[in-house]
Amino acid sequence: MLLPSINAQHYFGGIHTAVQLYRALAEHFPATRIILMDSAPDDAALQRFSDHIKVCCESDSDATRQIVSFNDRYGRTIPVGADDCWLTTAWWTTYSAQRLAAWQQQQFGAAGQLINLIQDFEPGFYPWSSQSALALGTYRPDQDIAVFNTRLLADYFALQGLIYQHRFVFEPTLNDELRHALEQVRAQPQPRQRRMVVYARPSTPRNAFELLCEALRIWGWSDPTSARWEVVAAGELTTDLDLGPLKIRALGKLDLPAYAQLLATSAIGVSLMVSPHPSYPPLEMAAFGMGVITNQFANKDLGKFSPNIRSVEQFTPEAIAAAITHEAGRWEKREMLFDSLLDMDHPFLGEGGFGEIVRKMAMSNLKW
Amino acid sequence: MLLPSINAQHYFGGIHTAVQLYRALAEHFPATRIILMDSAPDDAALQRFSDHIKVCCESDSDATRQIVSFNDRYGRTIPVGADDCWLTTAWWTTYSAQRLAAWQQQQFGAAGQLINLIQDFEPGFYPWSSQSALALGTYRPDQDIAVFNTRLLADYFALQGLIYQHRFVFEPTLNDELRHALEQVRAQPQPRQRRMVVYARPSTPRNAFELLCEALRIWGWSDPTSARWEVVAAGELTTDLDLGPLKIRALGKLDLPAYAQLLATSAIGVSLMVSPHPSYPPLEMAAFGMGVITNQFANKDLGKFSPNIRSVEQFTPEAIAAAITHEAGRWEKREMLFDSLLDMDHPFLGEGGFGEIVRKMAMSNLKW
Repeated sequence: MLLPSINAQHYFGGIHTAVQLYRALAEHFPATRIILMDSAPDDAALQRFSDHIKVCCESDSDATRQIVSFNDRYGRTIPVGADDCWLTTAWWTTYSAQRLAAWQQQQFGAAGQLINLIQDFEPGFYPWSSQSALALGTYRPDQDIAVFNTRLLADYFALQGLIYQHRFVFEPTLNDELRHALEQVRAQPQPRQRRMVVYARPSTPRNAFELLCEALRIWGWSDPTSARWEVVAAGELTTDLDLGPLKIRALGKLDLPAYAQLLATSAIGVSLMVSPHPSYPPLEMAAFGMGVITNQFANKDLGKFSPNIRSVEQFTPEAIAAAITHEAGRWEKREMLFDSLLDMDHPFLGEGGFGEIVRKMAMSNLKW
Repeated sequence: MLLPSINAQHYFGGIHTAVQLYRALAEHFPATRIILMDSAPDDAALQRFSDHIKVCCESDSDATRQIVSFNDRYGRTIPVGADDCWLTTAWWTTYSAQRLAAWQQQQFGAAGQLINLIQDFEPGFYPWSSQSALALGTYRPDQDIAVFNTRLLADYFALQGLIYQHRFVFEPTLNDELRHALEQVRAQPQPRQRRMVVYARPSTPRNAFELLCEALRIWGWSDPTSARWEVVAAGELTTDLDLGPLKIRALGKLDLPAYAQLLATSAIGVSLMVSPHPSYPPLEMAAFGMGVITNQFANKDLGKFSPNIRSVEQFTPEAIAAAITHEAGRWEKREMLFDSLLDMDHPFLGEGGFGEIVRKMAMSNLKW
């Protein structure tokens, strides 16, 4: 597996998901290694992979579980065998692995199979440019195996004409700790506070922070009842923000118990995502009975996930503000009682894991 | 018409095309004005619109041809009438006009018709973000009239689910001066120099300058015949660039006679464009008999425009380099004689102008 990094400061959801798939696949391989492209692993990271040993990139080790640092690679090489297969997730790790596989083709007459864990449409992370073109060029539907994080994303790829011959799809599931908190809410329902949670990540462009602020400003100026609501920001915001008609109180990055408590006591959530990927916050908020405002994008309409989600069709600050006004009115009418929690048999509350996908892969006629 | 600017330093193809459409439309309206959003017009710009008079944004003038500077607009207003229609082109001018039209709706009970001259898919100019979402939100296929710069772009919008009820399309045509130069080439064909022209615009991400350089580097290292070729850059590059195996000689921005001379004497052109819009350089190069290497993008495949164009399917530096090697080999085999010029009856060599589109609009049941 090629990964950017396994250090704590880079170990977000996408990397964790890749490691889970790697561990499920590893059971089918006599030997595996994690090749780190961007950052050398620190001691804490290595401790989290205690069944692996650290191996220098140039040494031809027999260890069955290796961690290989290859971030400092100018003029250096890495041993590659004829039977090596590749697992990648960020596009530049896919780009590198595809060139390693081309070298296998030259040396051994056959390229190793590549499994691309696709967690977003990464060309969308850049303006149309060399970077977006290179990211787009890593999608090889006729050659690689794709594992898609959500059906929505897989369908978006198909809409763009990227139809993988070998395609596996998994769906997000609620974190265990949040699932327990949700069952407590189900057992003891309470009215909600007049509180709106906005998902604020100014450093992640696709969370559309500026558009969120502009929508809140329009809502604040146009809806007199807005003064009765408290607006708090989960995500990255660390200082309060005065938007004029209202203030956003910054909660910073919450730990899971605090986040669960917020979901269990708040009424409205606003979480935008300029991508076909659903992202977790709107699903989590909706599971807890919050009324969620989010955006549609291409084939994505989260209104189909839960009736608690209002997914605006027109991506304008006015349309988002109007949806907030509408949602606030509904809570007033219901005297701050939530409408419904997510059904206990909803797939989002099911077991996650890659066992089934890896079993299907192993049973197929793929080259590993 | 809302425009960013009419000053020379901003007056590129897109603005010029908008002004041409404006002039064709103006014949059907008793009064028109050009509202400038980003830069006040300088004297030279005003002289190019000598039939217009400059009007202060807040004055309610009766002049039939006005230029109104509205770049310095904090706390200021502009008079808008019930019958005002809107013509826009850059997405933020469309965004503004849509809000002016919403004000007409409030004040007069009906919004003025908006004509959106769409010259690229502008959300692609940004990473997925607030900006890309706002740009995307300006596409209102049920409300506005779209005038698309090329069928390829119109088809791309349709592929994205943006199907305008009222849609007009025009195609690019060769500049008059280049057309005369092409007829001279047709009258007196000559062998070409072993020269490759690359379209280099480092400041325009969608021209993929880094990817172009990487492809040239791979070609230079892998193809021994590359040493016999001269590589020159048209576009923006002002200093020569040493790529290792070869140098790019910078020609800077050429005037039309120099550009025509280059097209008439060179053999290979490389021009990339990460967009469904074809852009002019590959079409111009192919018209003059050059062998052109460019990229496919979604529904765009310029191989259908002319057999002189090789449009690579996989957007990788290796694929572009391989196409250059192939093309260089073809020129050697033909002893530097070109294969074919663009047929004289090709639409690209036809008359341009908006007369027909505006006649069709006027005959339709649209609201102006």
